[in-house]
Amino acid sequence: MADFSQIALDPSADAPIYKQLADGIRSLVDSGIIQSGEKLPATRELAGRLGLNRTTVSAAYAVLEHSGILEGHVGRGSFIAKLAKTDHPETTDWDSLLPPLESAVPAAPNVQISFASSRPAQRSFPLAQFRRLTKEVIDSPEAAQILQLGSPHGYPPLRRFLFEQATASGLARPTDDLIITNGCQQALDLLARLFFSENRGGNNGVVLEDPVYHGLVRVFSRAGANILSIPVDAAGLDPALLEEVLQQYRPRLLVVTPSFQNPTGATLSLDRRKRIVELAQRYSVVLVENDIYSELRYQGPSLPTLKELDESGNTILLRSYSKVSFPGLRVGWVIAPRPVIAHLAEAKQLSDLHSDQLSQAVLLRFAESGELTRHLERTRTAGADRLTCVLEACARFLPAGSRFTRPTGGMSLWVELPAPLLADSLLRRASERGVDFLPGRYFSARRPHTHGLRLSFGGLTPDEILRGLEILGESARAELASFANVAPLEPVAALV
Amino acid sequence: MADFSQIALDPSADAPIYKQLADGIRSLVDSGIIQSGEKLPATRELAGRLGLNRTTVSAAYAVLEHSGILEGHVGRGSFIAKLAKTDHPETTDWDSLLPPLESAVPAAPNVQISFASSRPAQRSFPLAQFRRLTKEVIDSPEAAQILQLGSPHGYPPLRRFLFEQATASGLARPTDDLIITNGCQQALDLLARLFFSENRGGNNGVVLEDPVYHGLVRVFSRAGANILSIPVDAAGLDPALLEEVLQQYRPRLLVVTPSFQNPTGATLSLDRRKRIVELAQRYSVVLVENDIYSELRYQGPSLPTLKELDESGNTILLRSYSKVSFPGLRVGWVIAPRPVIAHLAEAKQLSDLHSDQLSQAVLLRFAESGELTRHLERTRTAGADRLTCVLEACARFLPAGSRFTRPTGGMSLWVELPAPLLADSLLRRASERGVDFLPGRYFSARRPHTHGLRLSFGGLTPDEILRGLEILGESARAELASFANVAPLEPVAALV
Repeated sequence: MADFSQIALDPSADAPIYKQLADGIRSLVDSGIIQSGEKLPATRELAGRLGLNRTTVSAAYAVLEHSGILEGHVGRGSFIAKLAKTDHPETTDWDSLLPPLESAVPAAPNVQISFASSRPAQRSFPLAQFRRLTKEVIDSPEAAQILQLGSPHGYPPLRRFLFEQATASGLARPTDDLIITNGCQQALDLLARLFFSENRGGNNGVVLEDPVYHGLVRVFSRAGANILSIPVDAAGLDPALLEEVLQQYRPRLLVVTPSFQNPTGATLSLDRRKRIVELAQRYSVVLVENDIYSELRYQGPSLPTLKELDESGNTILLRSYSKVSFPGLRVGWVIAPRPVIAHLAEAKQLSDLHSDQLSQAVLLRFAESGELTRHLERTRTAGADRLTCVLEACARFLPAGSRFTRPTGGMSLWVELPAPLLADSLLRRASERGVDFLPGRYFSARRPHTHGLRLSFGGLTPDEILRGLEILGESARAELASFANVAPLEPVAALV
Repeated sequence: MADFSQIALDPSADAPIYKQLADGIRSLVDSGIIQSGEKLPATRELAGRLGLNRTTVSAAYAVLEHSGILEGHVGRGSFIAKLAKTDHPETTDWDSLLPPLESAVPAAPNVQISFASSRPAQRSFPLAQFRRLTKEVIDSPEAAQILQLGSPHGYPPLRRFLFEQATASGLARPTDDLIITNGCQQALDLLARLFFSENRGGNNGVVLEDPVYHGLVRVFSRAGANILSIPVDAAGLDPALLEEVLQQYRPRLLVVTPSFQNPTGATLSLDRRKRIVELAQRYSVVLVENDIYSELRYQGPSLPTLKELDESGNTILLRSYSKVSFPGLRVGWVIAPRPVIAHLAEAKQLSDLHSDQLSQAVLLRFAESGELTRHLERTRTAGADRLTCVLEACARFLPAGSRFTRPTGGMSLWVELPAPLLADSLLRRASERGVDFLPGRYFSARRPHTHGLRLSFGGLTPDEILRGLEILGESARAELASFANVAPLEPVAALV
């Protein structure tokens, strides 16, 4: 009988074990070590020999049966087939039935220092507190209610808590209501569907910042909206340019991230905020405030939200626990006038009935216990160090002629490379040396941003930031040297 | 100073406490007990007096400030205003901006026995096991990974487990892949978007059973699909009628619930299953199998899924843990050919990035530990008792001329009342006596079902089922007596 122990099984590989096992048996057949007509060991026996679960072996055998390599005979066992069957010919042509896939962000191989992901560092999670508070939640008498079917508006105790907190702080008005969503992404998706997909005709424009988080652009373009864009500089959206667009196109929706915008890190001044709110009212555009980073301020005083400045009460405010606590628990919320929330609740119910209640209950306990505030304080302290470090490293290592934003919070900053440097060529060179980032084209509302790139520093240590930017700088200089005319060395200018 | 303790605060009321407090203070002002210009106690003081949280009092004061009843003066305190401000005039006319709301199912007041909800009984949840296994999950080294941003395909260990299980049991083929969704509702929504919203033009028909779960109809009509319907009898979808519709309309999608269909409880025979799979292949319609109840079989042998019978490998299979474990944890999944899953993953990422990972990890532990199987066995034992009871009670109490289905599993059965009895009139009468159900119109794909109704027995005790049906029978007879010609008493026929 063949020696199955020579099949390499790697639990840390991407492919599941049963598939590795099936592939291994297939190789043994291909190489003639197992012959046609030979009987394979019973699943229980092979599982025992290889130290695997029996279902894993059954799954491997099933794969081999389906691909015609193995034949099962009830009561007799599994045998290697005489001839491999060909694939069934009647397979649907899915490509002709389905819309084309957008290309996803490719993962670079062997990246050691990644400026690409704007997620918090896993090592900074307050795991001990999470464990203690989750145990309190599941041991509480509310556990049964948490496990029962819930409301599309969200887990009632969390919804009440968030609305009382928002009302007490002046964020919510008596004419407002609140719904809990699976993070802000779902809030944006539900809004896009409400204002565009299900509501076609008329002016179907949405105004977005440019560059901007690509998930936001795609949500609105998928919903059939006409994407209008306003360039963002280091001070954020320019109200003068906004007014021109509002005047000319009379769009239906305006989405603004006033604090630590993704990807630029830009924050709108109080004056710009007031002006944007005024413009939204004057041109009757529905203002959506994407306010998911404002609690991650590391320097300077807080600014009021657009929602607070908007006396009309019409602003739709999006917030989330994902960026300030645990991104794997998908809990965000929307505060908006009651009719908007009623419509969102209807759309939410059709989309997925309601958000998961266990995470909602855990995050409520986190907020009520004060642990969220303490975690935020620690996050802000660490974030301030990272921010200082990344700004210093940008000034020190980026090639002459580069410009970069100087955010006072959040997780990202934006770099404009000097011509002829392109973000994509820099990425190719840097990723060979184990450093990556997202090039500007991933943040395009309408403009290409070929010289722009986002550096996300939220999940890195100061050492990683320094080393990463050193490599970026070296890669940029190597790339520049490959051109005929190398740019003269000049001090780096901050994009302010 | 006014006596605030006379304000009635009811923690079990629907309105949150801060709102009850604000309303109470407003009444004290309206009735002259608190006068214009009078100073209210500081929030901390009033909170202490009423035994409330200080943020609750702040929220109540904020509500009163926003509605112009209270004026806050920094450093001096809060005073009752001289004149109430009028509402701000610039409020957006949301009704003109947003599509009309569909009417939701109204909650009947004072219902003691509800046949309306097809959710499991809360008392049957295996809480001790949930607590033990959740603690294992959160104490495990995987906790940090669970809390980090995840994959649109789902929590990798759960996805792997489900796919290996499905492969071993012959449900999944090597050409298939799997994605985890927020229950089956999201799977249906993503499929509707993929095949209709984002893919307009051509034949845009979807074939649904009628009567059928309303959330399914609405998902597809919202996506712009043309709803085609096939009547369901006690044996389920009739393949002969299906063929006529497929021939005439050449629809794009066919959605079938082969086992214990909601609302009829009907199960397709093996012959009908084979025939439906053949027809789907012959007419090149994409077959979606909504298989969320099949594990709730109380009598008779299991039948293969359409997915297993479909040699072409094209069937899209939907499954869920929600109906067989905890509905409050939103975890379902789709098994389908790889190109379909790739598209669903793209749509899922735009919709909400990924499903909540804590619940996925908890349900994985539930399944792996064998607790899910044990819970299912207990659920089936209790379900068999309920089913016997509800069938006996229907035969005994429903008025002569009624017909009802005889499911062998699931949570619901379907009753057709004899003319002139209407489901809505019966509901009005029965709900006055504390019993409710969902009338047929809530399950309309195209037909009105005015004489039909769904009885969901999954969450009731045998005693409640008996008492509830006794009241339904009495209400039906009272309603019939209100007509001129009372139907003669005849034995009740089962709809088989």
